[in-house]
Amino acid sequence: MKKDLAVVLVSGGMDSCLTAAIAHLSHQLAFLHLNYGQRTEKRERKAFDDIAEFYNVKKKLIVDAGYFAKIGSSSLTDVNIPVSKADLYNTNIPKSYVPFRNANILAIATSWAEVIGAKKIFIGAVEEDSSGYPDCRSSFFEAFNRVIKEGTKPETVIEVVAPLISLPKREIVEKIFDLNAPIGLTWSCYQNEDRACGICDSCALRLRGFQQAGKTDPIPYITQPLYE
Amino acid sequence: MKKDLAVVLVSGGMDSCLTAAIAHLSHQLAFLHLNYGQRTEKRERKAFDDIAEFYNVKKKLIVDAGYFAKIGSSSLTDVNIPVSKADLYNTNIPKSYVPFRNANILAIATSWAEVIGAKKIFIGAVEEDSSGYPDCRSSFFEAFNRVIKEGTKPETVIEVVAPLISLPKREIVEKIFDLNAPIGLTWSCYQNEDRACGICDSCALRLRGFQQAGKTDPIPYITQPLYE
Repeated sequence: MKKDLAVVLVSGGMDSCLTAAIAHLSHQLAFLHLNYGQRTEKRERKAFDDIAEFYNVKKKLIVDAGYFAKIGSSSLTDVNIPVSKADLYNTNIPKSYVPFRNANILAIATSWAEVIGAKKIFIGAVEEDSSGYPDCRSSFFEAFNRVIKEGTKPETVIEVVAPLISLPKREIVEKIFDLNAPIGLTWSCYQNEDRACGICDSCALRLRGFQQAGKTDPIPYITQPLYE
Repeated sequence: MKKDLAVVLVSGGMDSCLTAAIAHLSHQLAFLHLNYGQRTEKRERKAFDDIAEFYNVKKKLIVDAGYFAKIGSSSLTDVNIPVSKADLYNTNIPKSYVPFRNANILAIATSWAEVIGAKKIFIGAVEEDSSGYPDCRSSFFEAFNRVIKEGTKPETVIEVVAPLISLPKREIVEKIFDLNAPIGLTWSCYQNEDRACGICDSCALRLRGFQQAGKTDPIPYITQPLYE
């Protein structure tokens, strides 16, 4: 039987790589990537293309959402706001927060899914062990599914699924190895494009996951501090 | 007392012009406009700028969402799909439907509103006497407000309001004259940029409103059929 089509949001990082591996078990894949003026746009795009090639994905959509840089306010898109050193005990919303980014991405994904006939949208959001972004919580995705139901054609059935939502980073790393997901092709660093900095929020969460899982991260780092 | 700031979605058509006039009664205005590869993009942009000048709006954001043309499927963005002659008794979703467009626009508006501190987002959607788009119904906007609540910072309070949602086009035309909204600066035609065609869905709804209100539309038309 032919598998249903699913849109997978692939930033090119570790979480979206595992999400693609999970979606691949049950669906035909269509990959969506967003350029939103983030500092590491080029490197992320390469990771996206490499992961798509790995899974032999033919349907790809690259969206230029440069308006995020115009809107500003995030250290990821505004070069005047420095990328913070990670503080994994900080419970505030970090400076890298791009306001309402996931709603923007999901709206684009839903438009595309409705046109190509995809039934699911896979997103690699993580709530448990995350950076504290408000648009990465299950309650947000539940609310978004209601918007999809109300705002698309009556015959359209599209559901957002976030298979990593309650996984700690340690389990994400373990599952990556279980599913042979191409972790060496990914890029997570918010700051650099050649060697990962090892100290931004995204590097810190990733490295802590590897350390907790007792695995070695195959990508190059400038430094790999020990995270608890 | 200083008025709160509101983002107004201004396409440049009749409905968004009245929405701006209503928002202007109670708020400081910030205008958001989307280019999404629609056929009449240039003319709509001029209408946007003219209406902004009329209300002396300084905060303006023009977003290039050309990805809609990539996603395709609408006669508004795909030159291979002809713009239909209006059929005001058709209850199907028309070919001009841009999939999930309003969710995309509202997501962008929410990101901007969160950054500039706007408390409301005004959208000129019309449910009662409309083209039958699923993302123009009150239930859609209610669901979207829930997404905003879940997906923004805890201290952020932003509400989408659609003051025209239940107005028939006749009343929209009447209110435009009541509030001295600059209707002569607007553009509604889906097809032409010099003289409105008079026969696309958007022209038909507009002209019927003027005819029912017993008013004359000041913009130039190629033809003005009588609509019941």
